[in-house]
Amino acid sequence: MAITNFRKFLPEIRKQSVFLSTLGESEKNRILMKIASNLISSQKRILKANRKDLNEARKKGKSSAFIDRLALDENRIRDMAKGVREIARLKSGIGETIGKWRRPNGLTIRKMRVPIGVLLIIYESRPNVTSDAAALALKSGNAAVLRGGSDAVHSNTAIFKAIKKSLPAKIKNAVYFVNIPRDKVSELLKMRDFIDVVIPRGGENLINAVVENSAIPILYHGKGVCNLYIHEKADLKMAVKIALNAKVQRPGVCNAIENLLVDRKIAKKFLPMIYDAFRKENVEMRGDAETKKILKNIKRATNSDWNTEYLEKIISIKSVKNISEAVSFINIYGSRHSEAIVTQDKTAAAIFLSMVDAACVYHNASTRFTDGGQFGMGAEIGISNQKLHARGPVGIKELTTYKYVIQGSGQIRK
Amino acid sequence: MAITNFRKFLPEIRKQSVFLSTLGESEKNRILMKIASNLISSQKRILKANRKDLNEARKKGKSSAFIDRLALDENRIRDMAKGVREIARLKSGIGETIGKWRRPNGLTIRKMRVPIGVLLIIYESRPNVTSDAAALALKSGNAAVLRGGSDAVHSNTAIFKAIKKSLPAKIKNAVYFVNIPRDKVSELLKMRDFIDVVIPRGGENLINAVVENSAIPILYHGKGVCNLYIHEKADLKMAVKIALNAKVQRPGVCNAIENLLVDRKIAKKFLPMIYDAFRKENVEMRGDAETKKILKNIKRATNSDWNTEYLEKIISIKSVKNISEAVSFINIYGSRHSEAIVTQDKTAAAIFLSMVDAACVYHNASTRFTDGGQFGMGAEIGISNQKLHARGPVGIKELTTYKYVIQGSGQIRK
Repeated sequence: MAITNFRKFLPEIRKQSVFLSTLGESEKNRILMKIASNLISSQKRILKANRKDLNEARKKGKSSAFIDRLALDENRIRDMAKGVREIARLKSGIGETIGKWRRPNGLTIRKMRVPIGVLLIIYESRPNVTSDAAALALKSGNAAVLRGGSDAVHSNTAIFKAIKKSLPAKIKNAVYFVNIPRDKVSELLKMRDFIDVVIPRGGENLINAVVENSAIPILYHGKGVCNLYIHEKADLKMAVKIALNAKVQRPGVCNAIENLLVDRKIAKKFLPMIYDAFRKENVEMRGDAETKKILKNIKRATNSDWNTEYLEKIISIKSVKNISEAVSFINIYGSRHSEAIVTQDKTAAAIFLSMVDAACVYHNASTRFTDGGQFGMGAEIGISNQKLHARGPVGIKELTTYKYVIQGSGQIRK
Repeated sequence: MAITNFRKFLPEIRKQSVFLSTLGESEKNRILMKIASNLISSQKRILKANRKDLNEARKKGKSSAFIDRLALDENRIRDMAKGVREIARLKSGIGETIGKWRRPNGLTIRKMRVPIGVLLIIYESRPNVTSDAAALALKSGNAAVLRGGSDAVHSNTAIFKAIKKSLPAKIKNAVYFVNIPRDKVSELLKMRDFIDVVIPRGGENLINAVVENSAIPILYHGKGVCNLYIHEKADLKMAVKIALNAKVQRPGVCNAIENLLVDRKIAKKFLPMIYDAFRKENVEMRGDAETKKILKNIKRATNSDWNTEYLEKIISIKSVKNISEAVSFINIYGSRHSEAIVTQDKTAAAIFLSMVDAACVYHNASTRFTDGGQFGMGAEIGISNQKLHARGPVGIKELTTYKYVIQGSGQIRK
């Protein structure tokens, strides 16, 4: 099932993407339900293939974290099937009218939601991404070329077989798993005529490699340097609770905070409170000069700390003199991902929410909510901190675009 | 007024873009009206500067078409001011709620329209683009770095002075005209931290240079290879009228057609009709083998004709056996810009409109309507045939993005 001659198949995928784009919601859902049941019925084959990948990974001396990401079992396959069924239950919005108006000359212009076309999804060693990405693409009416990490190739191929078996003839090649070496991926990234968008799912190295090599527009998921600002009028207990949640509930993700900004006017009261809370959770604190005047025994934060995504239990704490310094700091050092203020003052909140330039701005809530599921958008393919096309969680609607459908009765331009 | 040290000023522009993003509609409109009146009152100075540019252009032996694009007079300055006032009358939509929902945990999520941030607009020798681009940027709440062609530098500097004079102190540097050599432009195109999107306005060479050198996302205006398909059930008189309009009303623009697809079943009747019409307008016709069987004395179209943007009075004519061949042809050779069908058959129209992948798809109307003004969107900065972010006319709303504003009462993630 591994296909290396993609130049031959890309025109076919492009063609089938047109058929896929015209499928109705119920037809797409039937296909997704079939994929879910075929994943379950192919369980033995998938697990056998996965054991092959696992053996090879162990031989190569991969880390236990790596092995864990790669490993499948009955539960994980059941979760994959469940994920596909959940995607079926979401609304794609394809075909919906986003706007409609009539011109004085009688032309009617309808702005209609349509799929983007052909997605190229490049991912690493988690085999569940294969079914996940295929389901998101199908539901949003997009054809997809999938390229998973070479370490998971047997698992992915087995999962892809279960998917392919579920596709009706006219879109049989609308989802395509390619087993190609890295240098061939660079070639794929130049095929602008056949691929509309590239979505890298993985770590910074993968994303940078795609950004550097792609001639095709990219939808990605940059780093998350998120900030939490404790305003002078904050409910300090709430502030401790939110800071703690935003830092330690899951430190290794993009919507966890890296910097804590504390208003000078409450620093003396708040800093000892948060110090105790962080100490209990073994969070390493690094402070600027002002902060260290109060928390004397923490490390000094250096300039490079302010825009570092730690992805672990480390936090930098900065004293700010007012909201305007906080906003400026965030607009310079933040990564335009998720930024939060804790305050009981409505005016301060309004200023913060309006002046901070980020995909998601929070008032009195943890940045950890930046997530397709938490937003009620369902499954997502990542969190965008780009500014064009999609910001924040990239769910099914963000995998669509629009076209203008213009109906006339012979109108010509004077 | 010419500023070369842009590295010093970009952080300032970024900062002022935040103030600009928070201005209300009426405040922005007051600024635009002031720009319009300052353009008129600076007329003498602008015309004097323009004469300098014109003299230098003539010395360099520039073509008369070039001189015409560069030249200003009282009427053109009045039109520039009028253009700015028209932009003031449009709605920017900034601050509007695109979507709002409440989560079971009590969080309210509001999707709010916001400016993109800082635009870099690179253009050629038309000085009117300076006021036009500045007004579109201001109205949409975006700061702008303007870089016009070096041949128009005196005119642009004078126009920019009139603009700058109209800006209140806190956004004095939110519109910035940079007079920098070409190699410095390449440097600007790497400044991802300070510029959010690049908009090249000009010919293919300019656009390609930007696409090749930019590390910043680009909004552009690709070539327009537009097709018109005459279905077997077309009203043939209407078909002639539309074909003629779409080809000759203004052949040098992107929404003019380059290919005419004629259903085999009506070819014998239609081709002689369109032949006469095109002949009268001195349109050169090139046909495929089938077409040449009927129109024996026209040139043979070669393979490269089908995806050539002639931008002049040349058209390629292809015989197709049915709608499905027409759709496939367009999806392969078209540039996803504007595509049209002429037919009285509603089912055929529906198939075409749904299966053709382009920014604008037309039924019984000329492709020449793809235009911000014609769509009723007002002024535009170009027509996009990209698929992400914006398709078709790029007006004020397309120069905006959104952010999620999340209000809580201390929610943390479990």
